[in-house]
Amino acid sequence: MALTTSWTKLRHLLTLQKHTRNIIVVASRHCNNTSQPTTIQQVDEEVAKLLDLKAQLGDEPTPKTVLKTPKGTRDYSPKQMAIREGVFKVIVDCFKRHGAETIDTPVFELKETLTGKYGEDSKLIYDLQDQGGELLSLRYDLTVPFARYVAMNKIAKIKRYHIAKVYRRDNPAMTRGRYREFYQCDFDIAGQYDPMIPDAECIKIVYEILDNLKLGNFVIKVNHRLILDGLFEVCGVPKDKFRTVCSSVDKLDKTFWEDVRGEMIDDKGLDPISADKIGEYVQLNGSSELVEKLLKDEQLVQSKAAKEGLEGMKLLIQYCDIFGVKDRVRFDMSLARGLDYYTGVIYEAVLEGAELVKSNSKSKEQIGVGSVAGGGRYDGLVGMFAAKGKKVPCVGVSIGIERLFSIMEAKMERGNQEVRTVETEVLVASAQPNMLEERLRLCKELWDAGIKAEISYKANPKMLDQYQYAEKAVIPFLAVIGEQELKDGVVTLRDTKTREETPVPRADLVSTIKQKCCSNSI
Amino acid sequence: MALTTSWTKLRHLLTLQKHTRNIIVVASRHCNNTSQPTTIQQVDEEVAKLLDLKAQLGDEPTPKTVLKTPKGTRDYSPKQMAIREGVFKVIVDCFKRHGAETIDTPVFELKETLTGKYGEDSKLIYDLQDQGGELLSLRYDLTVPFARYVAMNKIAKIKRYHIAKVYRRDNPAMTRGRYREFYQCDFDIAGQYDPMIPDAECIKIVYEILDNLKLGNFVIKVNHRLILDGLFEVCGVPKDKFRTVCSSVDKLDKTFWEDVRGEMIDDKGLDPISADKIGEYVQLNGSSELVEKLLKDEQLVQSKAAKEGLEGMKLLIQYCDIFGVKDRVRFDMSLARGLDYYTGVIYEAVLEGAELVKSNSKSKEQIGVGSVAGGGRYDGLVGMFAAKGKKVPCVGVSIGIERLFSIMEAKMERGNQEVRTVETEVLVASAQPNMLEERLRLCKELWDAGIKAEISYKANPKMLDQYQYAEKAVIPFLAVIGEQELKDGVVTLRDTKTREETPVPRADLVSTIKQKCCSNSI
Repeated sequence: MALTTSWTKLRHLLTLQKHTRNIIVVASRHCNNTSQPTTIQQVDEEVAKLLDLKAQLGDEPTPKTVLKTPKGTRDYSPKQMAIREGVFKVIVDCFKRHGAETIDTPVFELKETLTGKYGEDSKLIYDLQDQGGELLSLRYDLTVPFARYVAMNKIAKIKRYHIAKVYRRDNPAMTRGRYREFYQCDFDIAGQYDPMIPDAECIKIVYEILDNLKLGNFVIKVNHRLILDGLFEVCGVPKDKFRTVCSSVDKLDKTFWEDVRGEMIDDKGLDPISADKIGEYVQLNGSSELVEKLLKDEQLVQSKAAKEGLEGMKLLIQYCDIFGVKDRVRFDMSLARGLDYYTGVIYEAVLEGAELVKSNSKSKEQIGVGSVAGGGRYDGLVGMFAAKGKKVPCVGVSIGIERLFSIMEAKMERGNQEVRTVETEVLVASAQPNMLEERLRLCKELWDAGIKAEISYKANPKMLDQYQYAEKAVIPFLAVIGEQELKDGVVTLRDTKTREETPVPRADLVSTIKQKCCSNSI
Repeated sequence: MALTTSWTKLRHLLTLQKHTRNIIVVASRHCNNTSQPTTIQQVDEEVAKLLDLKAQLGDEPTPKTVLKTPKGTRDYSPKQMAIREGVFKVIVDCFKRHGAETIDTPVFELKETLTGKYGEDSKLIYDLQDQGGELLSLRYDLTVPFARYVAMNKIAKIKRYHIAKVYRRDNPAMTRGRYREFYQCDFDIAGQYDPMIPDAECIKIVYEILDNLKLGNFVIKVNHRLILDGLFEVCGVPKDKFRTVCSSVDKLDKTFWEDVRGEMIDDKGLDPISADKIGEYVQLNGSSELVEKLLKDEQLVQSKAAKEGLEGMKLLIQYCDIFGVKDRVRFDMSLARGLDYYTGVIYEAVLEGAELVKSNSKSKEQIGVGSVAGGGRYDGLVGMFAAKGKKVPCVGVSIGIERLFSIMEAKMERGNQEVRTVETEVLVASAQPNMLEERLRLCKELWDAGIKAEISYKANPKMLDQYQYAEKAVIPFLAVIGEQELKDGVVTLRDTKTREETPVPRADLVSTIKQKCCSNSI
């Protein structure tokens, strides 16, 4: 500490002397007066002394560790954790209501497990340093580890949820809830089942979660990879360009059609006639009536894939109707989803408060948060791991918890809502000195009876401090003891809000608190 | 698959031919018979043919991805997760009962944040690959990130718990619950308080958790770094050897005194007289009577540090007595704890079923699990991060959840205890074909009423399959519908266990199930 101060002063003095010398030199030049070398010499002598002092002090101390979390990550404060846990509870309750089990997998996988699963996004995977042994990477999502788990354990069917952090070396946009370390909440159904039944349940789940979180209107966009494939086929896209054209279409939520068209023609060498045909289709969206219309589109249904996809979409919307969620579901032919592994239905939920506006010719600017859930069917992924390529069809959904959390946090801040970060029911307090042991004894009684209790860690805390602590932490009661209470065999129970004080016989304290806290929480 | 088999056969044949050729060559040499070149030539011809075949088959196929989790890690199955969540609940309930908030920090930190905090153990830190940008490491514990958090946010006091995974490139011993990726459950109290009050609460917490988990007898060993320092001082250990001698003492839980003594003298250059003096002290353990005895030890109390430590220990045991946990606390002078950052009280909880026996002269063999919780006071760690070195005294405890979990798992396996992995209350079923939509409709009604319900994803599932599914997943009720039920406006509610069937008016179904499930769970 003393050393650091000396260094700071020294640096400051040296800079000052340098300035002084410069001023003298410049001044003497302007005056055409060269007979002032003494002043300069004096300054130089001062500098020499300072440099000598510097040498005596030794090396400049190394600066303190940079105090920050890694780029794109953050800490969660107790208040943020309380909000986050509230959101998690809504999600987990929903998953459990639908009969899901839960599993956990390691945060890193063998590098080869992730290889070839994410297409262009593979460059965003975090690798661990080779410290001898296996080559490892941090998981990029929960879907690939799930598929690895299913294949490794030779599971034929499972309905599981998994809530855990995933890692992407993406450009963080933290104000919009986009981080390099973020939670995913995944629900997946694996198994050979009849068409669209599990798929519709996934949509029902997204609906229930967004509805329960009360974040305003939302729409669940749905599409089908087979419809996209069929559409490309009839528009004359060569088969080897399906995937790359698909990833151009995927940009339509952030880019305008004219730019996507340009990319298809200029970058991907697509025939402009094909591109324009695609353009007509991908701008369509609607519900069952659009499916019916397309099923009558003679050009489109020439493709077996498109026909199959449309029949599936018809069934899906029918089940969504039974589940009471049809009015939130929009069949949107521009929805493509980035990942390679989808093979059937794909979906994405968007909050309607988060619409897109045109900001410049290149891109749409997103107001708010946008996509908050997404998923689809991936029937081939498990087979990529399984010993004999044995396929286990899967469909699932991932809830974008960080974005939901950002919205909830902003909402609570706007509403000035108090968030409790502790659940303490009673603060054991005393106004008198030398009551520490008595406070500890009483607190022990409460803990052992299952009551959430705290005490001040000071031997002789001030009563005012204890009152203020209880108020700040929203602890509903104080159990106050002093000489008189001990003599009378009572505890003074003080209601933090009303400041009402009641003497309660020590033997009745636990039951009284339990009763009061129970009625309080109703 | 067919290709792989050909390759396997080919490799086998080539190896065989090579062996045959060698045998012939060796045999002909021994027989001094050089007239057998034909046989060798025949073999060579066979080999040539095989090599030709190999060329025709093209490149050897790359083997399938290795299906495993990284070394020292594991997946958690739904059953294991159910057990794990049960253990977590006991721990979190206890932390909340003591008024703790919770925080979260990223899984990786800047490498420099972890540097210089773990002494010799630093070699066990996982580094991330340098992919441009910051140098990162996976967290090694939750204590250093907590200290970083406290310093970064200029927090003067906080009582928080943090449950998260940490990473150590240690030699895994998975059967004993030692992994490279494992959960830590930490509870810490930061702030300037009166002596030993928060320290005693940490011990009370360890007691409550181990008591509630019902894992048998346990003992909480306690010691004090100042007592150790004072002991080294009066035994004539040079000050610069305090730390290294301390880490020798730390081995006493796994190694016998004679070996530790040898290490001190031979490896660390300690005077044998000093070592023997240390040996007398570190084999002592007891309770308040030992503290009193040592406070009268004229040699020991010459050290100011030892005296201060002993006074602290006296107070701690006194508070432990008030908290009703004194009989489980053992003042053990051999307890040293590995980490550098402890400055005061240190403790470690050991399950008594897990005693140590002598297996050979070099080490004690651990039966079972051993240490299940540990911690201590670290008053200097936050200051290592704080801008002006501002100290925030801390004391905390870490629960070794993986070990507890291993014990619980083994216990449940032994007891053949059923672990439910889903919470489903009702399976919506039908014995008749073409009832899918009706089943979906009924299931939707239940979900919307908050009832945990499932349906078969088959369009026309067999009744027997539905019964068996409910039995296997321990789902207490089936809600069965068919033509007759729809006509009568009822649902047949079947009790999975008793197989009793009751027709319930559709309008009363939700309330009936809620009532039955509620009374069932009591």
